[in-house]
Amino acid sequence: MSDLEIRPVVETDLDAVVAMLADDPLGAQRESPDDLTPYRAALRRLADDPNQHVVVAVREGRVVGTLQLTVVPGLSRRGAIRSIIEAVRIHADERGSGLGTQLIQWAVDESRRQDCQLVQLTSDVTREDAHRFYERLGFTASHVGFKLAL
Amino acid sequence: MSDLEIRPVVETDLDAVVAMLADDPLGAQRESPDDLTPYRAALRRLADDPNQHVVVAVREGRVVGTLQLTVVPGLSRRGAIRSIIEAVRIHADERGSGLGTQLIQWAVDESRRQDCQLVQLTSDVTREDAHRFYERLGFTASHVGFKLAL
Repeated sequence: MSDLEIRPVVETDLDAVVAMLADDPLGAQRESPDDLTPYRAALRRLADDPNQHVVVAVREGRVVGTLQLTVVPGLSRRGAIRSIIEAVRIHADERGSGLGTQLIQWAVDESRRQDCQLVQLTSDVTREDAHRFYERLGFTASHVGFKLAL
Repeated sequence: MSDLEIRPVVETDLDAVVAMLADDPLGAQRESPDDLTPYRAALRRLADDPNQHVVVAVREGRVVGTLQLTVVPGLSRRGAIRSIIEAVRIHADERGSGLGTQLIQWAVDESRRQDCQLVQLTSDVTREDAHRFYERLGFTASHVGFKLAL
């Protein structure tokens, strides 16, 4: 595979990023790739927040992966900083290429660089392949993830 | 029970908050209530971040509960804002008083006020009472929570 670049998302990436968010069994019902207006507003808000890092993986000029890393200070664990990974997506053409591992490794390295002591994420209970993937990378399924839609 | 106030944490609350973080089967090994230095540094960082809301519940001048609410913008779900609840602690004297429900309700109300579309949290798999508590409040255990210590 040719070289991969992982860099912050910019507005011209939005088409490709939203297409990946929508190309997913769970994402298909939640996204609106034909109307980028809400995504543009969200991108401006993300850009204003120094603890938010939405990145894209680019190969040969094409956006082929994305994830969001949030840095969360806190009081517990002696004032530990933790990071949270959300919205991991790999382009269908790249599945099995090792790109998922490279993206998560980027997030772990960046978390270390920002003095985080813990990286955490949640994965839908139906995504069993994803669970095996995170366990292979050293994550422990130690928690139950609860959600409440408002 | 007398009136309850829920308000942002301040430095003079730290003693009581750290004592609650440490008075917990999992927290006992992780906290250092005799040395508040790391907690003071963390509190300054939290105060500088407009998306962080660490609150305390106060009854008759005593700090009896705490939680951290983090507001997280994002691209997925049409640019939805979500909130994350962490570090929920209720003083031993107040367990069963309904204070946990009041604190979580505060977090849900504040999340709505900040236009969040989703509230999420993770709970250690061993905290079965907590799981029943969150389900009674309408949360769904739809996810597996993964952690990686750095």
